[in-house]
Amino acid sequence: MAGNTYGQLFRITTFGESHGRAIGLILDGCPAGLQIDEAFVQEELARRRPGQSKIVTQRKEADKVEFLSGVFEGATTGTPISMVIYNADARSKDYSHIANKFRPSHADFTYHAKWGRRDYRGGGRSSARETAARVAGGAIAKLLLRQYGIDIKAYVTQVGHLKLDKSYQELNLQLTESNPVRCPDPEMAGQMEAYIKEVRKAGDTVGGVVSAVITGCPPGLGEPAFDKLHADLAKAMLSINACKGFEYGSGFDGVSMRGSEHNDVFRTEGDRIVTDTNHSGGVQGGISNGMDIYFRLAFKPVATIVPAQDSVNEAGEKVTVEGKGRHDPCVVPRAVPIVEAMAALTLADHLLRQRTARV
Amino acid sequence: MAGNTYGQLFRITTFGESHGRAIGLILDGCPAGLQIDEAFVQEELARRRPGQSKIVTQRKEADKVEFLSGVFEGATTGTPISMVIYNADARSKDYSHIANKFRPSHADFTYHAKWGRRDYRGGGRSSARETAARVAGGAIAKLLLRQYGIDIKAYVTQVGHLKLDKSYQELNLQLTESNPVRCPDPEMAGQMEAYIKEVRKAGDTVGGVVSAVITGCPPGLGEPAFDKLHADLAKAMLSINACKGFEYGSGFDGVSMRGSEHNDVFRTEGDRIVTDTNHSGGVQGGISNGMDIYFRLAFKPVATIVPAQDSVNEAGEKVTVEGKGRHDPCVVPRAVPIVEAMAALTLADHLLRQRTARV
Amino acid sequence: MAGNTYGQLFRITTFGESHGRAIGLILDGCPAGLQIDEAFVQEELARRRPGQSKIVTQRKEADKVEFLSGVFEGATTGTPISMVIYNADARSKDYSHIANKFRPSHADFTYHAKWGRRDYRGGGRSSARETAARVAGGAIAKLLLRQYGIDIKAYVTQVGHLKLDKSYQELNLQLTESNPVRCPDPEMAGQMEAYIKEVRKAGDTVGGVVSAVITGCPPGLGEPAFDKLHADLAKAMLSINACKGFEYGSGFDGVSMRGSEHNDVFRTEGDRIVTDTNHSGGVQGGISNGMDIYFRLAFKPVATIVPAQDSVNEAGEKVTVEGKGRHDPCVVPRAVPIVEAMAALTLADHLLRQRTARV
Amino acid sequence: MAGNTYGQLFRITTFGESHGRAIGLILDGCPAGLQIDEAFVQEELARRRPGQSKIVTQRKEADKVEFLSGVFEGATTGTPISMVIYNADARSKDYSHIANKFRPSHADFTYHAKWGRRDYRGGGRSSARETAARVAGGAIAKLLLRQYGIDIKAYVTQVGHLKLDKSYQELNLQLTESNPVRCPDPEMAGQMEAYIKEVRKAGDTVGGVVSAVITGCPPGLGEPAFDKLHADLAKAMLSINACKGFEYGSGFDGVSMRGSEHNDVFRTEGDRIVTDTNHSGGVQGGISNGMDIYFRLAFKPVATIVPAQDSVNEAGEKVTVEGKGRHDPCVVPRAVPIVEAMAALTLADHLLRQRTARV
Repeated sequence: MAGNTYGQLFRITTFGESHGRAIGLILDGCPAGLQIDEAFVQEELARRRPGQSKIVTQRKEADKVEFLSGVFEGATTGTPISMVIYNADARSKDYSHIANKFRPSHADFTYHAKWGRRDYRGGGRSSARETAARVAGGAIAKLLLRQYGIDIKAYVTQVGHLKLDKSYQELNLQLTESNPVRCPDPEMAGQMEAYIKEVRKAGDTVGGVVSAVITGCPPGLGEPAFDKLHADLAKAMLSINACKGFEYGSGFDGVSMRGSEHNDVFRTEGDRIVTDTNHSGGVQGGISNGMDIYFRLAFKPVATIVPAQDSVNEAGEKVTVEGKGRHDPCVVPRAVPIVEAMAALTLADHLLRQRTARV
Repeated sequence: MAGNTYGQLFRITTFGESHGRAIGLILDGCPAGLQIDEAFVQEELARRRPGQSKIVTQRKEADKVEFLSGVFEGATTGTPISMVIYNADARSKDYSHIANKFRPSHADFTYHAKWGRRDYRGGGRSSARETAARVAGGAIAKLLLRQYGIDIKAYVTQVGHLKLDKSYQELNLQLTESNPVRCPDPEMAGQMEAYIKEVRKAGDTVGGVVSAVITGCPPGLGEPAFDKLHADLAKAMLSINACKGFEYGSGFDGVSMRGSEHNDVFRTEGDRIVTDTNHSGGVQGGISNGMDIYFRLAFKPVATIVPAQDSVNEAGEKVTVEGKGRHDPCVVPRAVPIVEAMAALTLADHLLRQRTARV
Repeated sequence: MAGNTYGQLFRITTFGESHGRAIGLILDGCPAGLQIDEAFVQEELARRRPGQSKIVTQRKEADKVEFLSGVFEGATTGTPISMVIYNADARSKDYSHIANKFRPSHADFTYHAKWGRRDYRGGGRSSARETAARVAGGAIAKLLLRQYGIDIKAYVTQVGHLKLDKSYQELNLQLTESNPVRCPDPEMAGQMEAYIKEVRKAGDTVGGVVSAVITGCPPGLGEPAFDKLHADLAKAMLSINACKGFEYGSGFDGVSMRGSEHNDVFRTEGDRIVTDTNHSGGVQGGISNGMDIYFRLAFKPVATIVPAQDSVNEAGEKVTVEGKGRHDPCVVPRAVPIVEAMAALTLADHLLRQRTARV
Repeated sequence: MAGNTYGQLFRITTFGESHGRAIGLILDGCPAGLQIDEAFVQEELARRRPGQSKIVTQRKEADKVEFLSGVFEGATTGTPISMVIYNADARSKDYSHIANKFRPSHADFTYHAKWGRRDYRGGGRSSARETAARVAGGAIAKLLLRQYGIDIKAYVTQVGHLKLDKSYQELNLQLTESNPVRCPDPEMAGQMEAYIKEVRKAGDTVGGVVSAVITGCPPGLGEPAFDKLHADLAKAMLSINACKGFEYGSGFDGVSMRGSEHNDVFRTEGDRIVTDTNHSGGVQGGISNGMDIYFRLAFKPVATIVPAQDSVNEAGEKVTVEGKGRHDPCVVPRAVPIVEAMAALTLADHLLRQRTARV
């Protein structure tokens, strides 16, 4: 069944395989009258694109986006916005050697089990290349959110064992883009970069953590029961390739706290109602309370490694798999813009949904 | 906008407030011909119901479910199944003292911010009472999954600082229901129970962790891109009241591993393709691979506590809030059947979706 | 797959079988703060209920609706509104004689073909009894639309060969409820009533036409491409039992017109843009233009008749079927409130959707 | 809100404006393993394309479709299929004269009312050019249906006052494509063609009727309550530009029949259960019964005419509008493949939905 759509009112449907002709999306439900800054969309794609630094995959893709519809005289018209990114550096021959093999911890086996066939070139649709479409759609969402003063910032807080133990308030998030790791602490960023290079030299990969904070979100976004704001964020984040965990607010650490210390006491600040502590992470009962929304995401090490690994092929025979394709030694630097995009899409959707809450 | 529906093909819509007339659900999309064991549905509800032990809320609810439609001569007909549970012990007067106050870390403020009004009695729709409807629907999902040999078991692995550091393979999950905490390690269960009682005596609350494992899931369930099996599980779990985090497979611990140790190598076992390790947690590329699916959930301490707390009311004035309503000192024992229900609903939905994968 | 839900943002899901325990619905997405006039909901149900006159089925149902959730202190809270109507006069024994027979032109055979089983009592879910739930939900929609000055009026314009050849402008629609046929022309109503009685006496049934007009609809409701306002109206209407056709505006008669006579020329009237003619039927390009929306619906003769008919049973054997159950000799008088309800649900949904059209 | 998607499981989302860069679609949910005959898709587009004969618009578009994803080694992979058709002959200057004018009976005014702006070039998204995307998606649906022996044939039965009063059984539908009108009666086709030419010469337009029949549909397709097979067909058809009415089976003529003559009596034919008459039009209770499904559609005269017409502009000032753009004098010949496409999409969707009906 169709599973390539995200969002209810602000809704993207993505398409495309890693080494197919193109990837892209339709964004349906974007309100009319939004000025589209195409250069901004392209900049966001540049943050995700391969080859941007020495610690990411060296596949060469300009990721030039073309708008096919929905924008007229510089602004959205209310009709579907289609964007396409043609694949340039699709070296399909790179992958012929694994055409009928199942690479360990990749989606080769599960795609085959589901559909009885698959586009094996570069992982086909299971490749993180699909996320470029999300970043393009997310950029439009960001432009909408900007009008409401909502800002989203993601950044790297862990690479392998190297963990940055600071809250977002203790960091200068303006520094995130100052280094290829996208860690806002320059010293830690240097260590992380050195470590990623060491891992890459060993032909290996390593995992990491991306943290994120949403500021300026008004109270009232999110729905009761199932479509809680943080539940939708969780789904959005876990839908990103290699993501293995999500926690918001006090998260897993909060379980050992008592209610009396965990509760966020309300007080008035001017005409706003605020809390001093924010263990709730900006969401209570599934609905935003106006405080900062923050969360953390676990990313596993990339499955593609250079050393030979045992596996099986479609016939169930034992085979050896070697990592010849280009790949990232650590996914988190490039995950940062993707996390922001998925958060932006989620917020934009709930922003529109909120408009129907009252008579 | 409507946010009270979960699932695409096996779809529940729940209704009801904590102290309203009734709670219930419509389950639409359940295949015809499923034998309905009403006693089993009632047993599942008994596992969630208040008053079942001394460490849970003492609200008195039999939670007797009535089937209103969709079942004929003991089996489903393919038409919507409606179930209703009338509220019995709805002491609305208990709540009049907080009618216009915002209890700290409850949904009072956010509901008010969203809709400009709310049913304040016992938290209205934000109460975990709504989850009884999920358990009823989840019981039907379990009956369907049983036919496919799919089994779901949740259990408590942490209460406050008391953490059970054993994997599901090291535990006897048959023991989960042998104690009121629902921890499958009887010794640890005893400590946890004592701790919960101590916390309750102090008028306080504490958080915990629920772990879960799904066995017997065939390969091929889940969709690419957004509707990944684990992404839907994440949303399902985070939609449960008080849940703050989700991780599956290697989760947050996996981030410090290298690809060479994290990868799950395939081999053949009889006519099945399996892996020795299972850091993937039974899901690769968003689709089940036939191995066990396991995950962990963080639950925060319940917000209702006995000691007086500062807060504000609807007018923004400073007020004091005291916890008079009945409540759970720790949510995890009763969360166990809810976690299972949401997992069952997710699996049942993807089981049906998988039927359309091939020509 | 689940097919018992109508609407995107203002969304009802109905349940129930003709002779089951109850029928009912969940309305999700109704904005908060709508005053609920329960007496009005009950009046609407009275217009649809059996036994209201001598020309409709004599089944005895008070159709007393109970609100189970979503309404607090007389107004909606934004949470799901559940309503239930318990079946009173469910004479299941009436139907045992057709338990395994397929009544001609009923849904017995197709339900059996689809699901391999069915609740055969009174047609089970295929009975028009299900539409009581629609009328209850539609009444809430009407209350919402009333706030926007939108009014919907349906009425009977044909029974068998007796056709009322007048446009809605030539009729006094206040007279619709003055007679049991619900035809706003009293003389024609008398003829129709006599004819229905004659048909009933013969143990037979006859079809008819319901016309409807929506006034006060603002410009801008409806979506391009698939969710055109009139396309959603068409689906809504064809989903009513026994409905065989839908036309709006100039409809089938318009096909023989030329563009030069069919086009509706715009002009200004105060600060409104209006048209003199209205062949468009108030909708252009799928979106309302502010003029009256009008349409006509064909209803076939009810399939249940008294004389014996040949048919087959589940085993494919030849059998005889006799109409013992209570039934309507002509469906259109009771279809009037159902048509209004489905139109109201459609308009309410598009009213909310329109709120997200612009930045 | 997003309204550019059709279908639940076999789901298309279209994009594009008449004079934008491209039109196209994403088809999500097509089962894996379907052989894709690209030449067939192109042939279907050729049946809809402008310039194919002297009685249709002379806009020059090859309507060459490009597959961007979802097809690998000649077959579908289960991932989204994206198709794009770049606009070639987009003479935007043709439309500058109506940039701020509202053409009578076009969507100019309603689009403006809804979004406060619009792409006025050639009607933008309201142009029937969007239907090329539907035909491309419908062609894939046809390929799927072909595997199940389901065939759909649409044809013209009325142009203006010229009406072909024959049922589909009395016609040789192989002749439909033998003439530019797509009327299967060659003599009537000749008269219709002459009439269309006469109307065009007068700078005018005329309406018509398209009839259609679906053969080979198995029993069991369609859902109860709202998603009745014929209700979805009605929506699909009314979503086609200029369509004003839909009737199936006995339709509007059936209203004057009595139940005793309208009922379709069941009998056995080999191991199938069939009916002799088919007033039901192949659908009973919203679900297919295995007999032919047939329906008729009213199309209004095209709004674009050559003679000057009065109208107003965005400022509400009186203006004159002249039809300079290329347009069809009668829409029905080109509507035939569109009707088939929408029927095919509807059937394919319900075919997949039916797979989840039973345990």
